Amino acid sequence: MSDHVTGPVGPFEPPCYAVVFTSVRGGDGQGYDETAECLDELVAAVPGFLGMESAGSPGGLGITVGYFRDEEAIKAWRSDPEHRVAQRRGRAEWYESYVLHIAKVERSHGFVRG
Amino acid sequence: MSDHVTGPVGPFEPPCYAVVFTSVRGGDGQGYDETAECLDELVAAVPGFLGMESAGSPGGLGITVGYFRDEEAIKAWRSDPEHRVAQRRGRAEWYESYVLHIAKVERSHGFVRG
Repeated sequence: MSDHVTGPVGPFEPPCYAVVFTSVRGGDGQGYDETAECLDELVAAVPGFLGMESAGSPGGLGITVGYFRDEEAIKAWRSDPEHRVAQRRGRAEWYESYVLHIAKVERSHGFVRG
Repeated sequence: MSDHVTGPVGPFEPPCYAVVFTSVRGGDGQGYDETAECLDELVAAVPGFLGMESAGSPGGLGITVGYFRDEEAIKAWRSDPEHRVAQRRGRAEWYESYVLHIAKVERSHGFVRG
């Protein structure tokens, strides 16, 4: 996903799921940025989507964490037609490797400098 | 934490917890890198620690995800004396803001280019 840096999103109180997507890119990345921008807009429209954040540096590990209210929201996003096209293209063209963890948030807290 | 890029860690099968720490740095960062290196070594020795990965760029959002087998491992790490000193110093000196989510992994999968 593209890297909009504003600050951490959340904390989100349960019920909430975190979807942790960690990846190493490969290839020339053609079409990646455009697709990521498009997906950023699409995921924001999914009912139950709470927020997303990405970090990474070129050539390094990328981590994107999406927060969703429930399993239904995750399922809706996973099966979104444009997202599915991007998933296939990711495996074919953009990623050397990735790992996805779907996890149920049990507790959260945040800190902001006073 | 320091940024050792090798690839995604995992996937880890349940039972497993993901601790997602998202932060924005501030200040001059004095002592941060040394402390992060020290903590990387300490956390690796915690029974039930599975792996950790970090991504971020200078001035941007940083995301570190630690994976632990169970709540006992998370508690042991949270209450480690050197880690507690670092937590206090983080709030006093290194971070503008952060959010921490503790989440129980329900499922995982990985992809590696064939």
